[in-house]
Amino acid sequence: MREGNFVQVSNPHLSTIDEDFLYHFGLHSKHSNLEEKFGDVKFVFMGGSEGRITKFAAMAYAALKNDFNLDESCAQDNIAASAGRYVMYKVGPILTLNHGMGMASLSIALHEVVKLLHYARASDVEFIRIGTCGGVGVAAGTICVTRRGYTQRIEPYQPVTACGKTTNYNTDSDPSLCLKLVESAQKMDLPVRVGNTVGTDDFYEAQGRLDGTFCTISEVDKMNWLEELRRDHSIINFEMEAPLFLSFTRRANIPAAVICAAMLNRLNGDQITTPKDKMYEFIDNVLKLGIQYVKDRVAQDDQFTFEKIGN
Amino acid sequence: MREGNFVQVSNPHLSTIDEDFLYHFGLHSKHSNLEEKFGDVKFVFMGGSEGRITKFAAMAYAALKNDFNLDESCAQDNIAASAGRYVMYKVGPILTLNHGMGMASLSIALHEVVKLLHYARASDVEFIRIGTCGGVGVAAGTICVTRRGYTQRIEPYQPVTACGKTTNYNTDSDPSLCLKLVESAQKMDLPVRVGNTVGTDDFYEAQGRLDGTFCTISEVDKMNWLEELRRDHSIINFEMEAPLFLSFTRRANIPAAVICAAMLNRLNGDQITTPKDKMYEFIDNVLKLGIQYVKDRVAQDDQFTFEKIGN
Repeated sequence: MREGNFVQVSNPHLSTIDEDFLYHFGLHSKHSNLEEKFGDVKFVFMGGSEGRITKFAAMAYAALKNDFNLDESCAQDNIAASAGRYVMYKVGPILTLNHGMGMASLSIALHEVVKLLHYARASDVEFIRIGTCGGVGVAAGTICVTRRGYTQRIEPYQPVTACGKTTNYNTDSDPSLCLKLVESAQKMDLPVRVGNTVGTDDFYEAQGRLDGTFCTISEVDKMNWLEELRRDHSIINFEMEAPLFLSFTRRANIPAAVICAAMLNRLNGDQITTPKDKMYEFIDNVLKLGIQYVKDRVAQDDQFTFEKIGN
Repeated sequence: MREGNFVQVSNPHLSTIDEDFLYHFGLHSKHSNLEEKFGDVKFVFMGGSEGRITKFAAMAYAALKNDFNLDESCAQDNIAASAGRYVMYKVGPILTLNHGMGMASLSIALHEVVKLLHYARASDVEFIRIGTCGGVGVAAGTICVTRRGYTQRIEPYQPVTACGKTTNYNTDSDPSLCLKLVESAQKMDLPVRVGNTVGTDDFYEAQGRLDGTFCTISEVDKMNWLEELRRDHSIINFEMEAPLFLSFTRRANIPAAVICAAMLNRLNGDQITTPKDKMYEFIDNVLKLGIQYVKDRVAQDDQFTFEKIGN
């Protein structure tokens, strides 16, 4: 197996800690066999809800069980169960976990999963967020691939505060990974669009919705703003995680992408009236795209040759 | 029963919506019988993790079943199950739900629960967050009662962005509610402290921890900063929700408080090394305090007289 780029942390203090307790996963850096369990992870798939991740783990098992001689329990045993905060499954080269809603919850999961992969000596890992979003000028069902994340104040970077002081970080996704995902989507005949993504700290006011508890804007204000986002910033969708997901992984030198299914086109309204079975179909398309991408990589890339059965 | 202060929204557009779908709860404003199911709610208890809320619902059932002639299923039926995002239980006058971690996830839950209570015509409702926190100069196990929420940039207000423009809102808790909670804690011989709370968007860098994936500060930087927070701003704890919880409820004219158990004293370190059974004990104390407060209110306040059995 070729020597890869190990997942690195950027924190001189970690080497002085005897045992690092990944508190929100309930895992220990020394006593949880991280290298044995997670050393071969190549793909990390994250999404908001537990249910989506549990479904994705089952789909990954079905798709990879023969290539990797997997036991069905891998898609059922929640590795992070003891902490009660996230669900996490390891299916062959895939690690998949939910991150809850919003960048604070995501931030905790990212800190701890990157440390986990660092302690596990995992290498050549890619991160992909599989999410849902509100489209801006794109039809419900479109898979939106993020080129760059924007804050809710429409800034093309992610501010991170440490000890009260704020630094802004680059929020560009990995172009090569995004291109491969677009290609896979095209091959699968899935509707796909590339553009910029606004990640907000609120589903209602910050996204210019008129249907929250509070609303201080008019329908005209909203439509003008959405048009401005589309015209001046190439925004195609709203969600609540992309700027942090992309900036955090970039700081860690990990290629990353965000693919989200649009649940509605915000230019047509705020309420999500898409029928439930349609919503599931749209979300499933994102999950299927993730699986297809991994299958293509496993088939094409000789780094997997040595890990597959019989090789 | 006396006429109360109904839960109000501040959004002229809501009256133009035929049916409001509370998407992240999977409930409908017209077709989910909100008034019948939730019209008598007086206390909303929210916390981060599902497990804590499920436990709180069971404790509330045990404490109130006789007063309110409750069926055991009320503490087991997750009302928000169909949406797969939050857990929510209705136990007599108590509505309890989890909000995930961080202010974005909390924001969604707050928008939808305040709209829910508005549609249900609930009145005289109080909101209490039952959480965990890192103490600053307070011992592990102390129950911290928030006087005012601070942002991670140490600003004594909460910025809320609507259509890209930011407004700052007051983050003071309700003094009367806080005092009653302190009194109840004292009666129960629980260690309690009142002070200000920093609510961050990140558990690691924003709280000045040295054990995240990234760290750009030294031990001395951290200690100086924590001392400054304590000395200049009366900060007693860090968590990830207080400023939004308090400002949102204040905007909606709902009295609110935040009570959190300290899992550690950050002046002694960053890793949470408190034994698991001790952590559970500390968290249980916050839940017990919430229950005791409700029992005291139910016993003392004649607004409940008509709802109790036999009256």
